[in-house]
Amino acid sequence: MTPALPDRAILQELATANRILFQQGVVDGFGHVSMRHPGHPGHFLLARSMAPVMVTQDDIMLFDPDSEPTGGDKRRPYLERFIHGEIYRLRPDVAAVVHSHSPSVVPFGIVPTVTLRPVFHMSGFLGTGAPVFEIRCCAGDSSDMLIRDRTLGSALAVSLGPQSAVLMRGHGSTVVGQTLRQVVFRAIYTEVNARLQLDALRLGEPTFLSPGEAAASTETNNGQLNRSWDMWAAQVAGSPA
Amino acid sequence: MTPALPDRAILQELATANRILFQQGVVDGFGHVSMRHPGHPGHFLLARSMAPVMVTQDDIMLFDPDSEPTGGDKRRPYLERFIHGEIYRLRPDVAAVVHSHSPSVVPFGIVPTVTLRPVFHMSGFLGTGAPVFEIRCCAGDSSDMLIRDRTLGSALAVSLGPQSAVLMRGHGSTVVGQTLRQVVFRAIYTEVNARLQLDALRLGEPTFLSPGEAAASTETNNGQLNRSWDMWAAQVAGSPA
Amino acid sequence: MTPALPDRAILQELATANRILFQQGVVDGFGHVSMRHPGHPGHFLLARSMAPVMVTQDDIMLFDPDSEPTGGDKRRPYLERFIHGEIYRLRPDVAAVVHSHSPSVVPFGIVPTVTLRPVFHMSGFLGTGAPVFEIRCCAGDSSDMLIRDRTLGSALAVSLGPQSAVLMRGHGSTVVGQTLRQVVFRAIYTEVNARLQLDALRLGEPTFLSPGEAAASTETNNGQLNRSWDMWAAQVAGSPA
Amino acid sequence: MTPALPDRAILQELATANRILFQQGVVDGFGHVSMRHPGHPGHFLLARSMAPVMVTQDDIMLFDPDSEPTGGDKRRPYLERFIHGEIYRLRPDVAAVVHSHSPSVVPFGIVPTVTLRPVFHMSGFLGTGAPVFEIRCCAGDSSDMLIRDRTLGSALAVSLGPQSAVLMRGHGSTVVGQTLRQVVFRAIYTEVNARLQLDALRLGEPTFLSPGEAAASTETNNGQLNRSWDMWAAQVAGSPA
Repeated sequence: MTPALPDRAILQELATANRILFQQGVVDGFGHVSMRHPGHPGHFLLARSMAPVMVTQDDIMLFDPDSEPTGGDKRRPYLERFIHGEIYRLRPDVAAVVHSHSPSVVPFGIVPTVTLRPVFHMSGFLGTGAPVFEIRCCAGDSSDMLIRDRTLGSALAVSLGPQSAVLMRGHGSTVVGQTLRQVVFRAIYTEVNARLQLDALRLGEPTFLSPGEAAASTETNNGQLNRSWDMWAAQVAGSPA
Repeated sequence: MTPALPDRAILQELATANRILFQQGVVDGFGHVSMRHPGHPGHFLLARSMAPVMVTQDDIMLFDPDSEPTGGDKRRPYLERFIHGEIYRLRPDVAAVVHSHSPSVVPFGIVPTVTLRPVFHMSGFLGTGAPVFEIRCCAGDSSDMLIRDRTLGSALAVSLGPQSAVLMRGHGSTVVGQTLRQVVFRAIYTEVNARLQLDALRLGEPTFLSPGEAAASTETNNGQLNRSWDMWAAQVAGSPA
Repeated sequence: MTPALPDRAILQELATANRILFQQGVVDGFGHVSMRHPGHPGHFLLARSMAPVMVTQDDIMLFDPDSEPTGGDKRRPYLERFIHGEIYRLRPDVAAVVHSHSPSVVPFGIVPTVTLRPVFHMSGFLGTGAPVFEIRCCAGDSSDMLIRDRTLGSALAVSLGPQSAVLMRGHGSTVVGQTLRQVVFRAIYTEVNARLQLDALRLGEPTFLSPGEAAASTETNNGQLNRSWDMWAAQVAGSPA
Repeated sequence: MTPALPDRAILQELATANRILFQQGVVDGFGHVSMRHPGHPGHFLLARSMAPVMVTQDDIMLFDPDSEPTGGDKRRPYLERFIHGEIYRLRPDVAAVVHSHSPSVVPFGIVPTVTLRPVFHMSGFLGTGAPVFEIRCCAGDSSDMLIRDRTLGSALAVSLGPQSAVLMRGHGSTVVGQTLRQVVFRAIYTEVNARLQLDALRLGEPTFLSPGEAAASTETNNGQLNRSWDMWAAQVAGSPA
């Protein structure tokens, strides 16, 4: 049986997350953010196929564990909803997922000799560095680069492993969190970290956070998420939709 | 006999394209976008000489196959309208053209040792890389760099060949599409790709899309053009004109 | 006995400083600006823990010389208030402090082989170059990177020495001034200088200001602070809060 | 005898130029734009000392050929008004001057091994490249970097020579034109060219415009200045002041 949608306050929070990610330059017309259904952890919430900045409560669909729309919902879903479903399957600790083409991160996914690593305390969640998923391993060398089925979604989830972010060669990145607010924070600071690392690499060899520093700063930042969220939410309060 | 202008909805779409290209940073006071007349494929529609962001329906002129204004229209046309006319002549598959000086693309046109190539799936239409047109070959080394007659327009169209984009040394670039919405999408993502490639080249040797990946992702994106268009159109809905 | 808060005009000036620093890209959801209590130089004024752009007069708290809230104020203070308190203790000439993660400055703190130095007259206050504080010296290699007690604050203040700015490895920077308007000016032009130096280092070996030029231009700029302040204050006059 | 101020339409045009230069990122709180008095070519018009974006008609002062305020005007003038006066003295062909710290240009003034040269047709006015003025030659190595008297202004004007732009080491740049609209166009495209050249130099060795291309494209652009001006003026129509 299909679970009911959660409270409208939760749908509104997800719509707000969509607009924040646009306003902060993480998504453009493409990219998406999902969350697990709070009461039914096998299911997840994700907008229908549309530009994130336009998403309202009423655009949010409920997907089953196989990333299929529920309740006979005939609206067009995102082609890449399997990113979300397969990560939720493999990572029970994850409650929210952002997929994007955020611009400073893409270069780290297409140059095999570098690794995106945390250069400052706001991005300690990047830990020992973000793995890169090479879709050619699974889809051959003539794919359209999209995670368009469960097999590819599962391969991506395996690449992610226990990390918080995985880059996708020639495509973008996917970031995960334990809450919606945390994943929004992480998607934004993954982009910030990439820009800082790009600039630092011009200057010489950066000192990255140690594993202990990465873990401790992540723990501290988890207690500060609402400070940023409240500001970002205020910034999009007057935006379309 | 001169064909009549198409429906005002089509003129409005072209005016909107002008404003989107400004809002997305592809054009500034210079640059232009045209489309073939839907019912008379030898003719094309292009604004009079003015800043794109100011263009309204009433500023759009109709040009004949030789890039001359029709119907005794005495308004000042763009000096470089021959870019459009000669590409339409040589490329029957092309229904819309954007010429711009979009800032991340210019450097790829002035450094002979690099090629603009697709680094991610949104710009698969760049295929095996954008050719560069060197105007000195045809206009000598003291020209004003502009495509100001049919001969230069034809030489540029030959340089473009079967590709979707051609760079112009010391000048800018020209992008083509099968529809107006597609060419706007391509002009924007040509700029995005150039910025990503500039950043990636700092980091090391990028992995470009394979020809198969470029073709397949282009095909997929062609089915998604309206998602971006709807967002961009909403963003310029309140802009001047 | 706890001193009374200063005039509301002074609190308003500090709230305005918070919003200017956000609008100019020096702070995001994190970072903070303080000033000494004008009549009680051992005490200082600093907002409660919140995003700077949201700060109003009523959010400002009064701290004692040990960076503890006064008068039984139970609101949540910034974890890093010790940056401010310990600098005020060690530097009697300092009357205002900005701590931020301003994005062009961070790379200079994480690459040990470069020094942030004044490349133009607006940032002469950088003198012979900004020192870098390495928290591992004092907190080991698994800290959360924050200046969360008096000991760390004091070590940072010692690193600052007689300079106007100190970088913090893997974290950000702290800038000091003799007045609130001066420290806002300095925080903004520290960021500008870092961007210029990053760009200049791409081109070759920069010529930095000589010590004499740095001192003389600082002196001149001190007489011009209100020109920028008036503009920045006008720009944030309509912003939230 | 002191000439009368010109028509208010001319003062308004100069005020608009100030706001355009701010809106386009050429000036921040510092920088200034002047024009010769149309009927009295020995005198020139320049705002009182204030942030350019705030300038209105009523803030414009009239200066004599020695850069001194006329008619007993007691308002505070810019310290560097001698930049303008001495260029007008040495260059009778110049009718308008912009001094700025525009951010992409500064690096070319502080790295002695590079020259700012035209990389595309919009900046052909840069000719064979912008000279760099080193103030140490005239003011020693402990100056405040400012052009604060006629001697320094004259030395700068000599460095400019017959060119359209001169860079000032550790400071900024000064651009000249035959009309106010032309100098605004040139100041904006000097900044654009510098950004393009910075990016191109990352990629390899750029091909610059030949002297003939630079001259011919300048001539063409002179016929197109109003297209940009009209757009820029529309963009600042609603701005403060």
